[in-house]
This record gives sequence, C-alpha cells and structure tokens, in this order.
Amino acid sequence: MQDQLSNTFAALADPTRRAILAHLALGESSVTELARPFEMSMPAVSKHLKVLERAGLIARGREAQWRPCRLEAGPLKEAANWIEEYRRFWAPYLDALERPTRSSPTKRKASGQRGPNRKRAKGETK
Amino acid sequence: MQDQLSNTFAALADPTRRAILAHLALGESSVTELARPFEMSMPAVSKHLKVLERAGLIARGREAQWRPCRLEAGPLKEAANWIEEYRRFWAPYLDALERPTRSSPTKRKASGQRGPNRKRAKGETK
Repeated sequence: MQDQLSNTFAALADPTRRAILAHLALGESSVTELARPFEMSMPAVSKHLKVLERAGLIARGREAQWRPCRLEAGPLKEAANWIEEYRRFWAPYLDALERPTRSSPTKRKASGQRGPNRKRAKGETK
Repeated sequence: MQDQLSNTFAALADPTRRAILAHLALGESSVTELARPFEMSMPAVSKHLKVLERAGLIARGREAQWRPCRLEAGPLKEAANWIEEYRRFWAPYLDALERPTRSSPTKRKASGQRGPNRKRAKGETK
C-alpha cells in the first residue's frame, strides 16, 4: 500500500486531474460541470475523480443524483509542506539558473565586480 | 508524452525517490552513497535515479566512474509554484481542520499586564 504523500503526488501527476482540482478550488461542482471543459467521456472523467478521491484530494457529497465534488485541502498542504521543507536547500541551486526576482535592499554580490574575470567596460583600456 | 509538471509529480510519488532528493538537497553524492541508507540493490537504486533524471530532478556528472548525482531545483520550483498558486483557494478549506500555528511577531497580550492579576515587582509596596 502506498503512503499518503505518494498517493497525493501520483494523483497530481496528470494535467486533467490538476485542472479538476483547479476548478474545485473555486467551489464544489457536479461531475457534469467538471467534465464540460474537457473533451472527454463521462466515464473517463469519473475515472480521474476516483483517483483524486482515493488520494483524499476530493470528497463527494451523498445527495442522491447530484453528488457534488469538493476539494479536500489536507493532502495538498502535506505535499506543499514536503516541498517547502527542502526549499532552503534547493533554493540556492536556483540562483545559478535565475536571478532572484524579489528586490533585496542591498545587492552586495552585484556591486563592485573587481575580480580578474570582470568584463571590461566598453571603451575601457587595459 | 507527459508534460514536465506531471513527470515531476510522478517522480515525487515514491518515498525512496523523495528520500534520495532529500539526501541530494545536502550536496551532490555518488550512487553508492545514495544507496547506503536503503536496503536495496544497486540496480533498484539506479532505476529510481533514472526516473528522477528523466523528470529532470537530478543530473549526473560525466566523471568516468564516479558520476555524482546532484539536485536540479527547477522542476521542484515549478511543482511548488503549482501548489502555491491555488493556496489562496485551498487554504480556507484548511481553516475548518486546524488553527494556524504561526506565531505572530507582536505578542500584545503578553505585554503590559496591568490588570489585577499583575505580579508585583520586587520591593514594590501596595
């Protein structure tokens, strides 16, 4: 049997299921409403809903015909927590890929390039 | 072909792979080192590494024998972003489950006890 966190990530590993969750984030919804944006048969949508339900990411009402789906936020929070826990470790790796977009008041690194590898300014002589 | 975000979540949907990423968050590592904490054959560990590598979550050095693994933070950030994007929607659902635990920087309640239960300072007279 898989652990909860693995079930959550596995359920998130599909664009249709993520779109369903995004829709449900706005409020509960019937299966018919959820199926509308996707060019997909009702059984196909139902299959995705079952995966989300088994992972505990959604719950379904018991009202006879309608059975509205609603988001269950607990597992999403757990997944967010896992990624966040390691952010302080993986965030520095990002610095190599991109400049941080938050405006820091003091940019120590950027100021005063004095090393031998400093690019020469245009027109600057040796 | 699966989209990047689906690949990332699928790769995260396994406790061993998450443990490997947690280890690599501390720094690059050889496959032998990565295999040590798990009671697992080297081919089994290699299989997990291949999944992580295909998902772009790790990269491997080209040094002949050693080929150290290192974390690639980009896809993790993308996954974090996806969950965060919907936090404002799913967070309210959590309020019903738990009280927020974040400690506020100003503890108004604690400061300036002036009520009748305030402890008298040493030497203070009635």
